[in-house]
Amino acid sequence: MIKMHEVDLSKYKLRTDLITENISNYKQYQKEVEIYKNIKIETINLDDKTAKSINKKKGIYKTIYFEDATDEENFNTLLEASTKAIKDLINKIKIKDDYSCLVVGLGNRKATPDALGPLTVDSIKITREIVELGFSLDNKYRIISSLVPGVMGTTGIETKEIIEGVIEKIKPDFLIVIDALAASNLERINKTIQLTDTGIHPGSGLLNNRHEISKETLGVPVIAIGIPTVVDATTIVSNTINYLFRHFSYEKENIDNQKVKLIPPSSRNYKEYDKTLNKEERKEIMGLIGNLEDNQIKSLIAEVLTPLGYNLLVTPKEIDFVISKLSSLLAKAINKSLELN
Amino acid sequence: MIKMHEVDLSKYKLRTDLITENISNYKQYQKEVEIYKNIKIETINLDDKTAKSINKKKGIYKTIYFEDATDEENFNTLLEASTKAIKDLINKIKIKDDYSCLVVGLGNRKATPDALGPLTVDSIKITREIVELGFSLDNKYRIISSLVPGVMGTTGIETKEIIEGVIEKIKPDFLIVIDALAASNLERINKTIQLTDTGIHPGSGLLNNRHEISKETLGVPVIAIGIPTVVDATTIVSNTINYLFRHFSYEKENIDNQKVKLIPPSSRNYKEYDKTLNKEERKEIMGLIGNLEDNQIKSLIAEVLTPLGYNLLVTPKEIDFVISKLSSLLAKAINKSLELN
Amino acid sequence: MIKMHEVDLSKYKLRTDLITENISNYKQYQKEVEIYKNIKIETINLDDKTAKSINKKKGIYKTIYFEDATDEENFNTLLEASTKAIKDLINKIKIKDDYSCLVVGLGNRKATPDALGPLTVDSIKITREIVELGFSLDNKYRIISSLVPGVMGTTGIETKEIIEGVIEKIKPDFLIVIDALAASNLERINKTIQLTDTGIHPGSGLLNNRHEISKETLGVPVIAIGIPTVVDATTIVSNTINYLFRHFSYEKENIDNQKVKLIPPSSRNYKEYDKTLNKEERKEIMGLIGNLEDNQIKSLIAEVLTPLGYNLLVTPKEIDFVISKLSSLLAKAINKSLELN
Amino acid sequence: MIKMHEVDLSKYKLRTDLITENISNYKQYQKEVEIYKNIKIETINLDDKTAKSINKKKGIYKTIYFEDATDEENFNTLLEASTKAIKDLINKIKIKDDYSCLVVGLGNRKATPDALGPLTVDSIKITREIVELGFSLDNKYRIISSLVPGVMGTTGIETKEIIEGVIEKIKPDFLIVIDALAASNLERINKTIQLTDTGIHPGSGLLNNRHEISKETLGVPVIAIGIPTVVDATTIVSNTINYLFRHFSYEKENIDNQKVKLIPPSSRNYKEYDKTLNKEERKEIMGLIGNLEDNQIKSLIAEVLTPLGYNLLVTPKEIDFVISKLSSLLAKAINKSLELN
Repeated sequence: MIKMHEVDLSKYKLRTDLITENISNYKQYQKEVEIYKNIKIETINLDDKTAKSINKKKGIYKTIYFEDATDEENFNTLLEASTKAIKDLINKIKIKDDYSCLVVGLGNRKATPDALGPLTVDSIKITREIVELGFSLDNKYRIISSLVPGVMGTTGIETKEIIEGVIEKIKPDFLIVIDALAASNLERINKTIQLTDTGIHPGSGLLNNRHEISKETLGVPVIAIGIPTVVDATTIVSNTINYLFRHFSYEKENIDNQKVKLIPPSSRNYKEYDKTLNKEERKEIMGLIGNLEDNQIKSLIAEVLTPLGYNLLVTPKEIDFVISKLSSLLAKAINKSLELN
Repeated sequence: MIKMHEVDLSKYKLRTDLITENISNYKQYQKEVEIYKNIKIETINLDDKTAKSINKKKGIYKTIYFEDATDEENFNTLLEASTKAIKDLINKIKIKDDYSCLVVGLGNRKATPDALGPLTVDSIKITREIVELGFSLDNKYRIISSLVPGVMGTTGIETKEIIEGVIEKIKPDFLIVIDALAASNLERINKTIQLTDTGIHPGSGLLNNRHEISKETLGVPVIAIGIPTVVDATTIVSNTINYLFRHFSYEKENIDNQKVKLIPPSSRNYKEYDKTLNKEERKEIMGLIGNLEDNQIKSLIAEVLTPLGYNLLVTPKEIDFVISKLSSLLAKAINKSLELN
Repeated sequence: MIKMHEVDLSKYKLRTDLITENISNYKQYQKEVEIYKNIKIETINLDDKTAKSINKKKGIYKTIYFEDATDEENFNTLLEASTKAIKDLINKIKIKDDYSCLVVGLGNRKATPDALGPLTVDSIKITREIVELGFSLDNKYRIISSLVPGVMGTTGIETKEIIEGVIEKIKPDFLIVIDALAASNLERINKTIQLTDTGIHPGSGLLNNRHEISKETLGVPVIAIGIPTVVDATTIVSNTINYLFRHFSYEKENIDNQKVKLIPPSSRNYKEYDKTLNKEERKEIMGLIGNLEDNQIKSLIAEVLTPLGYNLLVTPKEIDFVISKLSSLLAKAINKSLELN
Repeated sequence: MIKMHEVDLSKYKLRTDLITENISNYKQYQKEVEIYKNIKIETINLDDKTAKSINKKKGIYKTIYFEDATDEENFNTLLEASTKAIKDLINKIKIKDDYSCLVVGLGNRKATPDALGPLTVDSIKITREIVELGFSLDNKYRIISSLVPGVMGTTGIETKEIIEGVIEKIKPDFLIVIDALAASNLERINKTIQLTDTGIHPGSGLLNNRHEISKETLGVPVIAIGIPTVVDATTIVSNTINYLFRHFSYEKENIDNQKVKLIPPSSRNYKEYDKTLNKEERKEIMGLIGNLEDNQIKSLIAEVLTPLGYNLLVTPKEIDFVISKLSSLLAKAINKSLELN
């Protein structure tokens, strides 16, 4: 008999940057919900206690849920919604009209799913150079500058060190930092925008070994805007195992249902299927694995893949198109949010 | 008890373009092997019978195995090896010195792992324009032109139709077609070059629904050069399940071995671990799944993922760097192979 | 005494693709003018006689004059104006709702001022792949496909041959071709859009030695959309000589005007200065050159530069920003114009 | 009669970054010359006095003259020559083996002629991240990091401020800074590499209003590597006027030479033609302009163009191809020069 306890389940940090995925199993918290047509904005005010319990930072988290940003009509609704969300956050944390802003695009311009930050910054309206050149600024605008620090893999420099160095020179009053995130669930990829005043944290997103970029470490407010564009390998495997069970549960339920027999498997929707299998059935299909918790399965898979040195990105095939849409969306929303009136 | 036979295992085509992965379980064939330092070139002359048996086309397949193309020394050895391999193939299929060549880069320039073809073509030395402009060509050179047709997702046109249309106008004597491929095994990603005179086939690589690009369909010899840069989601899941077993087998074997206890899991190499678990142990760990064939597991996973509409790419994180190295490698090798002397 | 007639003034074709620059000195023609705020649309219906007299093709030419497309408000007005202009042309040449369209982006994606066509096509909404994949098309849309053939310098193939080849395969009912043009006057660079049903002609724009792309050569209607993004070296030199005269004329006029003395030269606006110098003054400043016609000066400069083999592009410094704005403008305008309702 | 003295000739800085163009009319200086096949390396040790007299900084200037870097054989000779030149400079200024290096690519990645710096840095082998990740470095390598600060037009931040900020964080022992330069002569564009230990200076190259990047301002040695990729508008005009005279001089000389009559103008090589016209002839052809000094003509043209607000780049048409070759050349040369052995 194989001793599962050989597997130390604590060793592997599970990779997700989405508060909603961290907090999901956690009941005692308040959330505020707004609906824009087919778009939902969820605002969570994470207090100290809850924050600690899910190993996140205390602060405001806004999550925008949408299904498709590539259709023009959805795009415009989403633009409206995200502009409002950014403005809300800017107000909540008391950013004054005369505060200057540095917009930072994290990530690797050359790796499609990681290019969200740099591509967004490419379309940010900067104004600081006008002042630098000695002209005065239309009072409709803030002083805005931008930075694309690159990733340590290509610069050899901690992203945070570059940002810190630049901040000490140009002294912006606050930062907006855009980054591609990792999700722990396939279903949220490219369908979620997260805004928070808590900054960006080590090992988050695609940029590992990066030190925290936040008010605590930089001394100025940091608004982090992220979209999950990848999941890691462990996620896709554990998601699949999870679907396997729903699949079997569905098959079992309908085993003598002639109508279902006629539905081609590719059209059988068990995604939302709720009837779950019992412990015995799970064991029958997947043995020991069958009765592990999601987290345990992920840790196990991490333990299995790590020695193989596979450092993998999982992204949708049409990623290039989606990223260009999403980066132009964020740029437009940020530009509008930074205008004064 | 759940009826596994509910799952029709034939429904899903398994995605691999690597002959070695198709032929691996198949014994009766000849291969010729050359070694260049740490690089291996395998040449298979697929006869009709074998070809049919593995559902591939009759013809010559050369597979170059390497570990790392990013180190300068390896790069140069690999360049030498692949140049020789391309020249061999050119000779084997009797390409004459006065044959003109059209080099085609398949794939989507904007999706990093799929950009191999376009990036390679960017560095191909073309000569045809000299002739077009009315000058005569140094007899050291062939007439060479190039084409980047794009992908149907962005052009709305079958890649093959574009190539066919251009061929009818400029009448090249043969084609070299470069494409990113899909592997059915994580271990070969970005570590294999495949050359063949059989062209490129429907549903291969990243470009589905593409009609065959080959001598049979275009009327001129087609040399296809491919490198696997992605695996699909089903592959990574089934690979992981496979590693799970090796992992447990390794853990079990060493359960009372104090020395192993001291090795951090991340350094325990069970990748090549050969002692396998028996039917019972597999069942214990993974139930019914545990005793399916690899192909059955893949088909099952495909059946599970398909209805969810997940169309995923799995690539290494440093893909942008690797692709730029590999495309410059292929360009240099093709340029040298097309020179006359 | 030096014999000017040594210089044969007929030898050099003057490079401009803007009808307004060809026709400017020519009086007997009708034009229709529309005004959108600060934007002007000029429509010329070129009859056979006039066409011959200025060595252009008979047909409809629409010229949109604007000053700055980078400001958001101007951008939207310009988008409205150019959408209307494209729709007008589509109607005038009787494109039916069920006509399929191939949108072609000419030029070199990698040379900023020449990338207008490819960048525009990147954002064209294509629909043809839906039909290709066997689905039916929302009747709000035409069948639209796109092509970026590249330039002969990098493909070794005549752009026209590629287009022709593809057309014969996919049989579109009409073409929209986008290209960067050459202007013969600095003042129109990036400030003019030209639409015409006469197609694109040899030696136009940046792509020399390219054969005509038009209804006559391809058999289907061709709508050409161009923006001048460069002038050639001869243009900038002759423009400057021309400004020299205005400058001196201005200086002379104001030589004893103390107020003008106080205006820093960089702010003295003689651009629109109309008082011109007489023959003698011109001779005094510029000798023989001073009394040549613009065309003669250009021909002379061409004669001087040609043997030096200088093949130059002259573009504004902020060209990359302008091109990305203008290509997104054209893409949006074309997408709207191709929608049915 | 028009008063030329109305034109203040001191107002306009002439734009050139090439020491050889500044020093050309200046006789009393030593230079050391090496020849590699068709490549020439000129080393000038500018002393205080000479430096002041031409308004440049005291220091070492190495100029590499070549004709074509796109041909493979030339490329390799040039690579050898420039590697040697960089190594020489590194030794001359006493860079120790254990000095860490920050390689900075100045310029705008998105404007082809200005992308030389960023593209070069893309291929620099960085090693610092290995140390950052806690591993130790093969003693064959220095600690190397890289930075692409962008241009003020897109970041709103002085390039120098970004560099300064990063330097204060990571404390490199010396810098290598790559930039596209402006030439004051068409003939040197893309055919010259300049190395100097004096850094990069205000108003140089394409990046105006940039503060000095040098040992004096940053506190660590700065090796500047530049290639002229553009000339400004005034240059091309004054060059042309200059060619006009050579042209007429040539025409005059050969006016009765029947043989010359047979040579098509495009093949008459007067480029190196030395017989010059006398004062009277110049006046006859070009009046007052005809007898101005080159500098006076340039200043005059600058005065004429400035109020028109034309901020122009003049580059060869094939610039994208040349830039990609030259950036890969510099990257290879820098990588080799930074290796230890």
